[in-house]
Amino acid sequence: MNDCQKPGHIDVALIHYPVVNKKGDIIGSAVTNLDLHDIARVSRTFGVKNYFVVTPYEEQQQLASEIIAHWTTGSGRKANPDRCEALSLVRVCKDLDAAVEYIEDKYNKKPIVVATCAKEQIEILSVDQVQKLISTGQSILLLFGTAWGLAPELIDIVDGTLPPINGSGDYNHLSVRSAVSIILDRLID
Amino acid sequence: MNDCQKPGHIDVALIHYPVVNKKGDIIGSAVTNLDLHDIARVSRTFGVKNYFVVTPYEEQQQLASEIIAHWTTGSGRKANPDRCEALSLVRVCKDLDAAVEYIEDKYNKKPIVVATCAKEQIEILSVDQVQKLISTGQSILLLFGTAWGLAPELIDIVDGTLPPINGSGDYNHLSVRSAVSIILDRLID
Repeated sequence: MNDCQKPGHIDVALIHYPVVNKKGDIIGSAVTNLDLHDIARVSRTFGVKNYFVVTPYEEQQQLASEIIAHWTTGSGRKANPDRCEALSLVRVCKDLDAAVEYIEDKYNKKPIVVATCAKEQIEILSVDQVQKLISTGQSILLLFGTAWGLAPELIDIVDGTLPPINGSGDYNHLSVRSAVSIILDRLID
Repeated sequence: MNDCQKPGHIDVALIHYPVVNKKGDIIGSAVTNLDLHDIARVSRTFGVKNYFVVTPYEEQQQLASEIIAHWTTGSGRKANPDRCEALSLVRVCKDLDAAVEYIEDKYNKKPIVVATCAKEQIEILSVDQVQKLISTGQSILLLFGTAWGLAPELIDIVDGTLPPINGSGDYNHLSVRSAVSIILDRLID
């Protein structure tokens, strides 16, 4: 089996900038403790290799790094080893390019960048298509937006977008924590 | 079509007492703002009719009620109508019996009470079985535990327990917010 035939893997990036607010303006959002924990835990459960927390703000990078250090090298490590295992997946990055470079350096392979969005987009990649890509050795970097979602400038440059999560009607205002959980469960079954 | 042939529905109960801590002791946990919001939003997305926040502590009931009122009758209602729609599903109850009584009074039907647990239990109800029950008119009340999960005294009295959420390995330490999201998505597709 050569490298191309080994199954690929999934990475997750939580984008804090550029995202949009309620009015559609481009903003940067704040890192939250619970996004770090919840998304690290579900990432670890579903075998995600790296969970990138993407923010250009140095104070926010510092805050995220301190929270992660508490659980991975500080007193939290012994108090809750399961949490340590989850938080060990988190990599703090200044932008999407830095996350892509990290993956290229580590796995010697460019990831396929897949956005998620509550609204239907033009370049749709179905769950089946993404699963097929992984099975043929591709690595997938899944982007999730905080606030009111990923900025159009990100949606425009990705390789494809997963369809929105439809529930039982037309209401689709999930938290990003719920969206990551449901999409990882759908992709990795 | 008679009443028995109408499809049933799903309700969700988030239990704050009795639950267990890390050591397995029976404890009561605190209501959190984010559990109210995240679980109300995913419940609304998947057509859940009632989201019961179960706590015997009057101050906690008061806190939950004030948060809900802010979004459903206070200034949050206008600021974010989608959030109002989600939080409108929340009912604060002192215990499981009160939630079951609410359902019996409203729908004139006793719900089938189904627990969720990170560990395999004896009385398993599969996702298919629960879906079949709903399609034949039964109403399901899904129980989720905060802290380290539902107390054995609750698991012992339910009608069945869903299998644990298995990811890609043996790590299974999801947040309750992730667990509710994944289970609703699996049940309602």
